[in-house]
Amino acid sequence: MNTTREKPVITFGAGPSKIPREIKQDIINGINELDGSGLSILEVGHRSQEFTHLIDRCSQKIRCLYNVPENYHILFLQGGANGQFDAIPMNLFGNRGRNRADYLVTGSWSAKAAKEASKYGQIRDVCPRVPAYEAIPDRKTWSFDPEAAYLYYCDNETINGLEFFEIPQPPEDVPLVCDMCSNFLSRPVDVSRFGVIFAGAQKNMGCAGLTVVILRNDLVGRELPITPTVFNYRLQVASKSVLNTPPTFTAFVIDVMLRWVENQGGLEKMDKACKEKSQMVYRLIDNSDGFYRCPSHPENRSRVNVILRLADPKLEKLWLLEAKNVGLIGLNGHQTVGGLRASLYNAINLDDVTRLIDFMQQFMMTHKLLTSAGKSDE
Amino acid sequence: MNTTREKPVITFGAGPSKIPREIKQDIINGINELDGSGLSILEVGHRSQEFTHLIDRCSQKIRCLYNVPENYHILFLQGGANGQFDAIPMNLFGNRGRNRADYLVTGSWSAKAAKEASKYGQIRDVCPRVPAYEAIPDRKTWSFDPEAAYLYYCDNETINGLEFFEIPQPPEDVPLVCDMCSNFLSRPVDVSRFGVIFAGAQKNMGCAGLTVVILRNDLVGRELPITPTVFNYRLQVASKSVLNTPPTFTAFVIDVMLRWVENQGGLEKMDKACKEKSQMVYRLIDNSDGFYRCPSHPENRSRVNVILRLADPKLEKLWLLEAKNVGLIGLNGHQTVGGLRASLYNAINLDDVTRLIDFMQQFMMTHKLLTSAGKSDE
Repeated sequence: MNTTREKPVITFGAGPSKIPREIKQDIINGINELDGSGLSILEVGHRSQEFTHLIDRCSQKIRCLYNVPENYHILFLQGGANGQFDAIPMNLFGNRGRNRADYLVTGSWSAKAAKEASKYGQIRDVCPRVPAYEAIPDRKTWSFDPEAAYLYYCDNETINGLEFFEIPQPPEDVPLVCDMCSNFLSRPVDVSRFGVIFAGAQKNMGCAGLTVVILRNDLVGRELPITPTVFNYRLQVASKSVLNTPPTFTAFVIDVMLRWVENQGGLEKMDKACKEKSQMVYRLIDNSDGFYRCPSHPENRSRVNVILRLADPKLEKLWLLEAKNVGLIGLNGHQTVGGLRASLYNAINLDDVTRLIDFMQQFMMTHKLLTSAGKSDE
Repeated sequence: MNTTREKPVITFGAGPSKIPREIKQDIINGINELDGSGLSILEVGHRSQEFTHLIDRCSQKIRCLYNVPENYHILFLQGGANGQFDAIPMNLFGNRGRNRADYLVTGSWSAKAAKEASKYGQIRDVCPRVPAYEAIPDRKTWSFDPEAAYLYYCDNETINGLEFFEIPQPPEDVPLVCDMCSNFLSRPVDVSRFGVIFAGAQKNMGCAGLTVVILRNDLVGRELPITPTVFNYRLQVASKSVLNTPPTFTAFVIDVMLRWVENQGGLEKMDKACKEKSQMVYRLIDNSDGFYRCPSHPENRSRVNVILRLADPKLEKLWLLEAKNVGLIGLNGHQTVGGLRASLYNAINLDDVTRLIDFMQQFMMTHKLLTSAGKSDE
C-alpha cells in the first residue's frame, strides 16, 4: 500500500455521502444555467416558474417511485431529521386529543427522537431496550398503547447497523411514523401503511439541506400552538414547501438524484444492489475467523450501514489510516460509539465495494501473518 | 426591444439573488473537488477536518469583516429568517425571567416576526404602525418597556423598501435583536450594540440554506423548555453549528462569497457601492415627472431594495414583460404587495444598474410619447 492515489477517493460516510460520478456534470450544468433560464440554480427564485416546476417534479418522481397514494402530501423541509424529532410531536400530539406517543427504540436515533419528543408530552417505550442496541427487540416483547397519538420507529439505525425487514403494525387508528433517513430510495415500501415517513436528503438523495416528509392528509392541522411556523405541517402543505426560502440548490440535486434512481431501474434495482453490496461485506466478516466482527444481530443486519469491529480494537486506527491511504474514507463509526462502519448507499457501486473488500482482505492477511509471526517469536 | 438575448440575464430578485460571475468557477471547482480532499463538497462529511476548517473560516471572516467582539458567538443555522422568528422568543424569553418583548414594527417582516413571537409570550408594539409601512415611525412615537426580554427590529424591510440609518437604542439591559437578512455584508455595523443579529445567506452570502446568527454570550442558555433542538442556541453553540448535518454546500458558497467581499475591499466598499447603485435608481424615479414613484419615505429609503410603482399601475405587467425581454428579471414586488422592486445586493454591479436604468428610461420615453400621442388624438 502506498499513499499515491491511483483510483478516485470514495467516501463510505454515513452522510453526507458519495454522489454518483455520472451526475456531477448535470449539477455543474445547473450551476451554470438552470433549464435555459439564463440563471444559475443558485440565483433562481423560490417562487419562480422554474423552481415551482423543479419541486413539483421532485414530488412527482417520489410519487411514482413509491406509488404514493393520493391522500398523501410530499413536503421538503429544512432542519434535518433532528428537526423532525421535534416537528413530529408538535404536529401530531393534537391527533386524537392526547399528548402521548409510543416509541419503538432500537438504536441511537430512535432513542434521540424519543428524548426530544418528551419535551412536549408523555413518551412510552414499546419494549425494553436491547443492550448496546445489537438487535431489534423481539416482537413478543412489544406492547402498544391503543390510545397513542402515534407509534414511532426508525427503519434503519445508521449508528447500530440495524434495519427492519417487516413494517411494525400499530393498533388500529394509531398512525405509524417512520424515520427512513438512511434507507429511503433503497427499496420499495408500502406507503399506505404509514402516517408519516421522513428522510434527509444527504444520504440517498444528494446533498444536505432538505428533509422529505410524506404525510397522510388526515394528520394535517393538528399541531400544538407552540409549533414554529417552518415546522408547521399545515402551513407547509398550504404553501407547497415554499413557506419561506428553501435551499433551492439541494432541491435541484434531489431532482437530479431521483432521475438517476429512475434511470438505474427504480427501487427494486436499488434493493437488489443494496443486498448484494452488503452481503459481500458481511460474508467477508463472517469468514474472517473472528478477525472482523459485526455486532448487529444477523437477522437485523442493515443493507446500507455495515457496522464492523476488529478483534483487536487497537488496530482500528491503523485500519482507518491504511484505508485512507488507498482512497477509502468515511469508514469510522459514529463519534458516540467508535469502531468502523461502511455505509453502502445507492451511489456506492460494486467496484467501490470490491475495493473495500480487497483492502479488508489485504489488511487481514498482513495482520494475521504479523500476529502469527509475533506468536512464533515468543 | 427584442426578445433575443445579447447580454446575460440578470436577476434583481430579493433572494435567492444574483451571484457574482467571477465566483462561479470557484463553486464549480468545489463541486469537482474540495481543497484537495479527493471529494466533491457535496460528499464531504460535516464532521470532517475539511468541513470543520471551512466553517471556522466562515466565522473568522465574519469576525474580521465586522470586528465582532470576542464575547459573541457565530452560528450557522437552518430554517431561514422565519425559523429565527420563532427561535428568538424561544431562546430569549428566559432572559430576565419575563416572557415579554418589545417589537419595533416597520414593515411586513417585523410584523410577521411579532406575530410568530406572540405564540410564546406577550408582544408589545413600541409605537403605532405607519399605514402601508411607507416610513419608519418617528422616534418621538417610540416608547420602550425597560423590563422587556429584548427589543426586536428589522434593519431593512425588503418588501417595503425601508432601511434604518441609525441603530435603535433600547433601555439599559434590554438586548437589541436585529433581522439583518437583506443588508448583511452591505455596510459596517457596530456589533457591540446588539444582543442578536441574524441574516439568511440567500441575499448577500450566496445561496439559500443557512442563516448566520451573531449572538452575545450572556444570552446563551435561557431557552424555554419547548425549544426544538435545532433552534436551541445553547446546544448549537456547544456543537459549533454541527449539532446535525448542516447544508454543507451552502456553507461552502458562503465561504466563497465572504472571500469575494474581502477582495472587493470589505464592508465600506460595499456600502459605497450600495449607495451609488440605489441613488442611480432613486434619481431616475425622482426625475421622472411622476411616471415612476417610490412609496418609501425619502429619509428611510433602502440602499438595497428599491420599491417602485408606475403612475399607471396597469402598465406594470407590460413593464415586467419588457424588462424580461431585455434580460432583466426578478423585478416584481413581493406577492403580498405587488408593484415593482429592484434588489441591488452586493453582486449587482454598476453595469447591471446601468442596464436597468437604460431600460427604465426607454420604457418611460416610449410610454410618455404614447400617452401624449393618445391625448392629442382626443
